[in-house]
Amino acid sequence: MIENSYYTHEHHGEYELVSIGELQLEEGGVIPDCELAVATFGTLNAARDNAIFVSTWYSGTHQIWRDAYIGPDHALDPTKYFIVVVDQIGNGLSTSPHNATGANAGIAMSKFPHVRIGDDVVAQERLLREHFGIETLQLVTGGSMGAQQTYEWAVRFPEKVKRAAPIAGTAQNTPHDFLFTKALIDTITCDPGFAGGEYSSHEQVVDGLKRHAGIWAVVGFSTEYFKTEAWRSLGFETVEQFMEQFLEPYFTAMDPNDLLTMAWKWQRGDVARHTGGDLAAALGRISAKTFVTPIDEDMFFPVRDCAAEQALVPGSELRVINDVAGHLGLFGVSAGYMPQVDALLSELLATPV
Amino acid sequence: MIENSYYTHEHHGEYELVSIGELQLEEGGVIPDCELAVATFGTLNAARDNAIFVSTWYSGTHQIWRDAYIGPDHALDPTKYFIVVVDQIGNGLSTSPHNATGANAGIAMSKFPHVRIGDDVVAQERLLREHFGIETLQLVTGGSMGAQQTYEWAVRFPEKVKRAAPIAGTAQNTPHDFLFTKALIDTITCDPGFAGGEYSSHEQVVDGLKRHAGIWAVVGFSTEYFKTEAWRSLGFETVEQFMEQFLEPYFTAMDPNDLLTMAWKWQRGDVARHTGGDLAAALGRISAKTFVTPIDEDMFFPVRDCAAEQALVPGSELRVINDVAGHLGLFGVSAGYMPQVDALLSELLATPV
Repeated sequence: MIENSYYTHEHHGEYELVSIGELQLEEGGVIPDCELAVATFGTLNAARDNAIFVSTWYSGTHQIWRDAYIGPDHALDPTKYFIVVVDQIGNGLSTSPHNATGANAGIAMSKFPHVRIGDDVVAQERLLREHFGIETLQLVTGGSMGAQQTYEWAVRFPEKVKRAAPIAGTAQNTPHDFLFTKALIDTITCDPGFAGGEYSSHEQVVDGLKRHAGIWAVVGFSTEYFKTEAWRSLGFETVEQFMEQFLEPYFTAMDPNDLLTMAWKWQRGDVARHTGGDLAAALGRISAKTFVTPIDEDMFFPVRDCAAEQALVPGSELRVINDVAGHLGLFGVSAGYMPQVDALLSELLATPV
Repeated sequence: MIENSYYTHEHHGEYELVSIGELQLEEGGVIPDCELAVATFGTLNAARDNAIFVSTWYSGTHQIWRDAYIGPDHALDPTKYFIVVVDQIGNGLSTSPHNATGANAGIAMSKFPHVRIGDDVVAQERLLREHFGIETLQLVTGGSMGAQQTYEWAVRFPEKVKRAAPIAGTAQNTPHDFLFTKALIDTITCDPGFAGGEYSSHEQVVDGLKRHAGIWAVVGFSTEYFKTEAWRSLGFETVEQFMEQFLEPYFTAMDPNDLLTMAWKWQRGDVARHTGGDLAAALGRISAKTFVTPIDEDMFFPVRDCAAEQALVPGSELRVINDVAGHLGLFGVSAGYMPQVDALLSELLATPV
């Protein structure tokens, strides 16, 4: 157990920690007491059929969804829907390497087991069913690794998912993204302060986390984002400020082992595990009305990769979001981003299924 | 002076080391005895007007030009032209941190001064004039950092350059590429074996050089290169083989300080230094018939960045090369690459000026 003030209510507002008990993992490990951090918005109706489920991306938490995506002026409207955002395992709020204690003490830090996207979705489904009594979802959505979880939901529990909107992510991780994630992993593990995962403070890995931010700058945004100095919209005067006051602090606050747990999971996201490697067969199981929504300037989940999967999802539509910020447009940094997301999610939610 | 068997005739065939004497550098430093590695192909005619000049890219040497680009079956035909390939300063064959000795002993290793693209071009022009008596060039070309040098030639010595073909590179480095190069630099400097540039063997930095290769894999090729497993054309069975037997050995053979010298230079390539920051004015000086030739899948010198510069070069044309390999298509790894390069260089050379 490592102290880290980032993963607290002070930084993440209201959320509830809900134990779903022991979680057996696909890779053979066990989380003895799997706690999921859950933030809800709105009220579950009596029929329990107005729920929307949202999962989180790499390094992300429910916070960005609360701040950018959810509200009465958004498609994810808590006056109409009961919106449940669950932090993914390993993200620092749900059970994670740095916070494993008590019954989980045996899997702390470097001893944390490998977790897969499927493990998260199994845990999430159990949480929704046992804790909230929710059996159907009007919509499942998420960005990046949240898109991976969205696809996993739609393939694994097709009868429960009425609509799906995977944003800026794929159902089967690409070989390029595996290499990208490896480069991210390397920035942390090569830091002498990482000490094989047994550091005593994440601050000992600050150099690695800054390099981590450096690679995100290169691949996470777009060439045009920097060419047009679009970061000025965030109030910065120089690109150095943008790095030193925005992207680097974002990552240096985080726990290295937690990031590595998510990175390993991201690298191996693949719904075709359900069908012996047959991606078409896996995506063919989806019965949700699906909008596949890549971002046009995304450098590592390019439109063509998302479009190729969309073609395999029955009745789905390709809805491309235009954003010069590229993948990290997910943060809502561009003024034009949220109106597009709201428009397509509103249309999807209004589509009878 | 560090021993490194990569930078030898055994690995690089025939080349001549030519001293151009002392080189005063734009940043204020001095190379006391600047030696340029020069490989020539063909024969200079009596009028000394059949010369083509080629410069080298980051990590590259004359070798790839000899092996892939030059020959009687190519546009760069030594039966017609006298082709001079000059290795850039810091590339390990010309004067570089790892080989600085004798008169250059004072600038060895971490003491090597900052070199700019302009320094290379001044040195190259002196070499061509004093050593070969060449005053005009039928063509100047190069890829990536070689494109930077090509633009510098065309802006600095417009009367000497009849034709120019900058391939997969820009006249003014982009802010995105500055960050990309920084990420590359960080992989080396964060290695404890780098020891502030005072290692005693490049093998002490092998981990950093492998990470260097890892980032090149992500940004140097394209998402589609890996999606389509195009590396199979090189004879590999798995992407791991491709990395461990191709891209990693390519970089781990090299000298870290030499790479850093080139990286610093790359980050700051900018012909607008001649015109007080006015890029249009600088490119407007070019009188060479110019084909601007980006590669369509290039992730960090995208077509639009090259096209924006092309629009500023009088009488120039945009000629896009199609190659799924992206930027590192420059290696000639795709069967379709060289025919396109040969066609456009042949057309350019046949264009009266």
